[in-house]
Amino acid sequence: MNKTICVLGEGAWGTAVATLLAANGYTVNLWCYEPEVAQEIKRSRYNKKYLPDIKLDPKIQPTIDFAHATCDVQFVFEAIPVKYLREVLQQAQSCYTPEQVWVVLSKGIEQDSLLLPTQILDNVFGDEVQTAVFSGPSFAKEVANKEITAVTIAATECNLAEDLLGMLANDFFRPYATHDVIGVQVGGALKNVITIGIGLLDGAGYTENTKAFLLTKGLQEMKELATVLGGDPDTLDGLSGVGDLVLTAMGDASRNLQLGRKIGGGMPREQAVESLGHVAEGANTVQSVYQLMQKHNLDLVICRNVYEVLFEDKSVDAMLEDLMAQPLEMECAGE
Amino acid sequence: MNKTICVLGEGAWGTAVATLLAANGYTVNLWCYEPEVAQEIKRSRYNKKYLPDIKLDPKIQPTIDFAHATCDVQFVFEAIPVKYLREVLQQAQSCYTPEQVWVVLSKGIEQDSLLLPTQILDNVFGDEVQTAVFSGPSFAKEVANKEITAVTIAATECNLAEDLLGMLANDFFRPYATHDVIGVQVGGALKNVITIGIGLLDGAGYTENTKAFLLTKGLQEMKELATVLGGDPDTLDGLSGVGDLVLTAMGDASRNLQLGRKIGGGMPREQAVESLGHVAEGANTVQSVYQLMQKHNLDLVICRNVYEVLFEDKSVDAMLEDLMAQPLEMECAGE
Repeated sequence: MNKTICVLGEGAWGTAVATLLAANGYTVNLWCYEPEVAQEIKRSRYNKKYLPDIKLDPKIQPTIDFAHATCDVQFVFEAIPVKYLREVLQQAQSCYTPEQVWVVLSKGIEQDSLLLPTQILDNVFGDEVQTAVFSGPSFAKEVANKEITAVTIAATECNLAEDLLGMLANDFFRPYATHDVIGVQVGGALKNVITIGIGLLDGAGYTENTKAFLLTKGLQEMKELATVLGGDPDTLDGLSGVGDLVLTAMGDASRNLQLGRKIGGGMPREQAVESLGHVAEGANTVQSVYQLMQKHNLDLVICRNVYEVLFEDKSVDAMLEDLMAQPLEMECAGE
Repeated sequence: MNKTICVLGEGAWGTAVATLLAANGYTVNLWCYEPEVAQEIKRSRYNKKYLPDIKLDPKIQPTIDFAHATCDVQFVFEAIPVKYLREVLQQAQSCYTPEQVWVVLSKGIEQDSLLLPTQILDNVFGDEVQTAVFSGPSFAKEVANKEITAVTIAATECNLAEDLLGMLANDFFRPYATHDVIGVQVGGALKNVITIGIGLLDGAGYTENTKAFLLTKGLQEMKELATVLGGDPDTLDGLSGVGDLVLTAMGDASRNLQLGRKIGGGMPREQAVESLGHVAEGANTVQSVYQLMQKHNLDLVICRNVYEVLFEDKSVDAMLEDLMAQPLEMECAGE
């Protein structure tokens, strides 16, 4: 094992986390799926495709050689879209050892298996794999620009969380530790679904009060799903829940918000996805969450409605009518 | 008692709630502090000063006659800045009866007494006064425009909350009931303090990640103060907590956000307050919350720093340094 850290995935987020680790003195093997991106970083020190305008530290070493990137490395940060995560992990099996720590940067739920990223890791490497989750309100470009940012680091093993806090914390980056690996991952997945919902409202001409209503009820759905999956609902009040939701849904920079806006404005889903260029993972998560609700016999009204608008041609107006038709909660009625 | 409802205060919010009640069929006595505004509404049906562009229903009857507005009326909705609330309530004593219900629309904490609006009502009318609180993410103009809006109605008496839900709910307006009068009022007050804090960051050039960090930690301070004052921290996860905070802090329309931005950009506080024209009540609340922290020997880092920037010439950079210098929370350290 050496002091080099591996980051898997040259998207904006993987590259940004590589810049953070490099700023803290680590050498980073940045495994790139696209050879052109690796070559360009080597040549120009810029990742123009995914994180333009950021000059990358020479300690970030792009490679397309998977074994070179992951073998003999103790910490692997994976920033792979959930859809491709299992496939990538299977490549990593030959170099995997139980001393290795896998840090999840992905946000989402695998379709059909309905597993969260750490559960996919357990599934591929076996339950003894050491995992942690890194999540919170953090636009990639701002982290790369050393803007003040705080995130949650979740690990069931306390020592591991402490090691990661030590590796990541610096003058501009502030990680908070928690045990609740499940709650943090539910937040990371559902915030994209709720953000698409808010985009739908925007696109269809609804206003700020209505969006704040949807966001608040969406946060409650996050808590409900976290509880059902064995997490702690209070985790969703933190950086990886409400913090990330607010950043993604109320900022202007998120692809999932743009996806919702386009669909809410009348563009067919497939065209909207295509027009955004990169993967808007939220649309996949919308489907996974819908499957998960069916599996657990759970009705999360907003998540269900976002699914129905995206995949069953429901109108945004009908979505709002459904929300307004829910029985009023008389929490004191039972007394 | 008759079916007429009284709204005290012709500001944007009082006027907007009057439009909601009128839309639901009630006649509304709108008590105006400024005779010019009352006259203009009578003549033109517009409240140009506080809620322009909204044609007011003829069922809204402006008056400057306090006794006429409040006597023989069962429900009084008060939308008076907290600073003036006690003085206005003292005028209402001659017509007050214990059958009357007072619904609080004000948000803040009285200076020196450190009382929340319902506590000021108790203080003036005696403990038997029936009170409720109406709070949540609701820009006045959008309510008046019949945009879909949801809020929290808090009342310790369950029947009262149900009566109010019946009066207020309609196709575009959705109230949720809770018992937690304290938690709802803490949310309404502190969201203005946190919003000023976010404005300070904006004005001083900090970015989205940093604002989401402040917002999330600000929500935790709301919960902490609610707990100390006898409220339920979970209330702050609802419409009157996080919902209202997100609307106020992330939208563009709030005066408290603008106040923070001006001060964060270098304008002296008094000049910033003056330049905003109307009362920006948040600056008063910043002082009250600071006094409350001292009384309860409580250090809410963000609330304290906002106070120090506004009233003690601390820089926004120093505020951020203080936040970043707090010990990292190792929630697993004790094991």
